[in-house]
Amino acid sequence: MARANDKKATDTAQRLSRAALTDFCRDVFIAHGLNHDDATLSAAVLVAADARGIPSHGVARLPRYVGGLETGTIVAGTAPQILHETPLSLALDARGAMGAPVSQQAMDAAIAKARTSGAGFATVRDSNHFGIAAWYAMAALEHDMIGIAMTNTAALGVPTHGTQAMFGTNPIAFAAPAERERAFVLDMSTTAVTYGKIEVYARQGQPLPAGWASDARGRQAVDAASLWESMNRYAGGGLHPLGGAGTALGGHKGYGLATMVDILSGVLSGHGFGQHLHDTPSAMGRVGHFFAAFRIDMFREASEFRRDMDQLLGELRASPPGEGQSRVYYAGLKEIEREDEAAESGVRVADNVVEALIAEGARVGVTLPPGVDRQRREPRS
Amino acid sequence: MARANDKKATDTAQRLSRAALTDFCRDVFIAHGLNHDDATLSAAVLVAADARGIPSHGVARLPRYVGGLETGTIVAGTAPQILHETPLSLALDARGAMGAPVSQQAMDAAIAKARTSGAGFATVRDSNHFGIAAWYAMAALEHDMIGIAMTNTAALGVPTHGTQAMFGTNPIAFAAPAERERAFVLDMSTTAVTYGKIEVYARQGQPLPAGWASDARGRQAVDAASLWESMNRYAGGGLHPLGGAGTALGGHKGYGLATMVDILSGVLSGHGFGQHLHDTPSAMGRVGHFFAAFRIDMFREASEFRRDMDQLLGELRASPPGEGQSRVYYAGLKEIEREDEAAESGVRVADNVVEALIAEGARVGVTLPPGVDRQRREPRS
Repeated sequence: MARANDKKATDTAQRLSRAALTDFCRDVFIAHGLNHDDATLSAAVLVAADARGIPSHGVARLPRYVGGLETGTIVAGTAPQILHETPLSLALDARGAMGAPVSQQAMDAAIAKARTSGAGFATVRDSNHFGIAAWYAMAALEHDMIGIAMTNTAALGVPTHGTQAMFGTNPIAFAAPAERERAFVLDMSTTAVTYGKIEVYARQGQPLPAGWASDARGRQAVDAASLWESMNRYAGGGLHPLGGAGTALGGHKGYGLATMVDILSGVLSGHGFGQHLHDTPSAMGRVGHFFAAFRIDMFREASEFRRDMDQLLGELRASPPGEGQSRVYYAGLKEIEREDEAAESGVRVADNVVEALIAEGARVGVTLPPGVDRQRREPRS
Repeated sequence: MARANDKKATDTAQRLSRAALTDFCRDVFIAHGLNHDDATLSAAVLVAADARGIPSHGVARLPRYVGGLETGTIVAGTAPQILHETPLSLALDARGAMGAPVSQQAMDAAIAKARTSGAGFATVRDSNHFGIAAWYAMAALEHDMIGIAMTNTAALGVPTHGTQAMFGTNPIAFAAPAERERAFVLDMSTTAVTYGKIEVYARQGQPLPAGWASDARGRQAVDAASLWESMNRYAGGGLHPLGGAGTALGGHKGYGLATMVDILSGVLSGHGFGQHLHDTPSAMGRVGHFFAAFRIDMFREASEFRRDMDQLLGELRASPPGEGQSRVYYAGLKEIEREDEAAESGVRVADNVVEALIAEGARVGVTLPPGVDRQRREPRS
């Protein structure tokens, strides 16, 4: 694509039918060796990210997933191995399988164990990118359980007072049901910002805002391009943990949370952790996951819990917004409203991503169906 | 005390024997109606905070605890009531009891259930300040378990895009054992800073640094005194969540974590939550807690886990420090080193706190033993 088209393609978007987009991704995955069930699930998780307004974890990643399948970073046709199992726990070795199907298997096992015993846990080692963590945590909601999902990722974050990337963006997802309110669904990385933001600033040649990242000497990173280059070589510098540089605004807390996720996803699962997890330009490195579910009625009636959740979340939502703000949200509210909108109007996908999908499909003879309104161009969200 | 002495008394400190300081607090609690066991445990938790370098949660709070016992906010001589119990869970109603003893009972129950079943959980409603959350999470360590403790607190934090204090500082503690390295012990509030910092700046008449707090209209709070006054009336304004104002640096993540703690501590326990939790000048309001423990060998051999923890934590500790920094820590390392130092040299207590303790003891005929070196004055840590 000509450089002159870049701006237009990334700034405009179109709407595609969720079902058609999912079927397309499924068929691409099948063409690269996934079986029908794994392909369907993997596609559903990718498209859910776009539908929920998190395009960084959506179909834009399809080419990288395909790259992983082609290079063998992601192994098609392998079955996860059970390392250890108890009435409450399941420890799986994914043996390099696609992340989403083995993660769904693990979360389903945690939920089934929780149904029988009250609580269930599952770890997965030697896995791949599993999409949005919220997908798995939310699986607990319909069972009147609280759901938790975490994963470690390639090292991108710098410890408080440090200079080297020693942990990933290590997300935490936590879901709890309500009755009339939408469910509370927290899904957050434990770094201040994401790697993608550094990349965008590096490409645009803009200086980095304060509070995002540390350079290779532990100072505030300003030059995005040199930081990005250094991070890609693991030569020093990286993202601040949530809370920023040093301890003044709680950067040590984000660092602690990221390490907690690494302990549960990397150490408890028997996978690697910390600085040993790397991505490459063509594929994401292997990672470990942690899942948990527990029944609300271990403590009190689930209906009473949901009613109190309505009060808590309703009061947050109704609390007065600050100057220049229109609403106060709670975690998951904005995402589910976007998902409602996507169900009505289609899933918003940036034009440049649509073009990449069409190209990816063409390589294996899979055609992307036309958008809900391919002629209408919308500003990118 | 004369105003001229204030500076000296808050800036200097002395060392007291941990055992003698604990016995003193125990005897004060007994004089106010706690039984011997509850008084001993409550004193131990308070002094542990000072020993670990967290004086905000230490013996400086003794007068407020005593105030609670005198006004009946903290009820002496009541027994917690079991609301619900399963093989994995215990839901307690503290009925206004002292926070530490009922919290220890709850964490001990979670550990005992985990020993039998793999995992154990406990909630406590209608309780009081329980001290440092790490105390309870760390109880799991010697059992080769991972320990978790949380509590909600009086509303001090403002939601992302909001203006009203709708949640507390809501700490999360998470402890996991290692072999040669010290245990990983995260204990963090989910707000950017603590209420105490606003109070200090208000007293000193200093403008608030950026990133700490929101004023009653949702703007960056600058005037500490007016914010403090407004917060005390719950008239608007309060602490930013971890990650600061808005979403640019992840403030919505800290807000989400604070709400998660409120869901587990306030909603799941059947206690109150959010804006309904208030402190008064003389006593801290009632709160709810959440505790969990689970066996590491539900997933893999605990000895292998501890060995990998050594690698993870050792690599973090050995990672290169940034310019102007001498060391990289992991969560809990600084605190345990201070505890080692306190075991050798005594617990450091600020002179003004020592004076308050002496006065509090004198009211009930309990004498604070002399310090390890009462003549030596040290700069306050």
